[in-house]
Amino acid sequence: MSEAKAKVIFNQGLSFTGTGDSGHKVEMDGPSEHGGSDSAARPMELLLIGLGGCTGMDAISILRKKKQPVEGFEMNISGTRAEGHPMRYTDVQIEFVVKGKGVDEGAVKRAVDLSMEKYCSVKTTLELHTKVSFSYRLED
Amino acid sequence: MSEAKAKVIFNQGLSFTGTGDSGHKVEMDGPSEHGGSDSAARPMELLLIGLGGCTGMDAISILRKKKQPVEGFEMNISGTRAEGHPMRYTDVQIEFVVKGKGVDEGAVKRAVDLSMEKYCSVKTTLELHTKVSFSYRLED
Repeated sequence: MSEAKAKVIFNQGLSFTGTGDSGHKVEMDGPSEHGGSDSAARPMELLLIGLGGCTGMDAISILRKKKQPVEGFEMNISGTRAEGHPMRYTDVQIEFVVKGKGVDEGAVKRAVDLSMEKYCSVKTTLELHTKVSFSYRLED
Repeated sequence: MSEAKAKVIFNQGLSFTGTGDSGHKVEMDGPSEHGGSDSAARPMELLLIGLGGCTGMDAISILRKKKQPVEGFEMNISGTRAEGHPMRYTDVQIEFVVKGKGVDEGAVKRAVDLSMEKYCSVKTTLELHTKVSFSYRLED
């Protein structure tokens, strides 16, 4: 087991800045109709984007090891949200699009399957139960 | 039900750019030891950061409605990852820290409880089963 840490700090309106162990900042904001200023991505978007980054890093690494002539690689992701609060994602669909003349379909299938079935930690976090607990404290 | 969409595009190395429905870009990258260039946050960090943003937006909105004199608000989040692939989060802990003279503890408890138990869609997505499916296609 290993431990990951993140700090998320409130700025103003609905603007928050998050920083994880890598030290890189990620900005978030809400839409104006909810009191935000639409300056950055929504928190729920980060789940779909993180899923794409996670499986994309796996797949591109495997395709590179297989010496595939990949010229472009992207993912179209869609998430279905539940009606009513909390509007969680119930289903997520990823379409992998691999571009490049001479890329082998078997290699793509294997790369995508390996990520989806073995390596992708975001996918598995979404699929399985994660226990979320919390505490709070006040400071003057 | 509503549908959310995101596109995640490979740049180079392990660098990917994601865009959700808001249109704001989120950059991701991997560490140099895995072929990345450490230019941006890791995909798994986005889950903890998105969780903080989601519950933070709920809580700050509720505290604002309750006219609480909040001067600072942040969350310390830690996630325990499973050993071995896929290294999913098994447990996540959020510490809410609310700063401001005269902030009422009951209001903070109520704001945090309401987000955690009723509104936070990221928390509920992490806790419950999300079905992830996929397809792929090759383009010349």
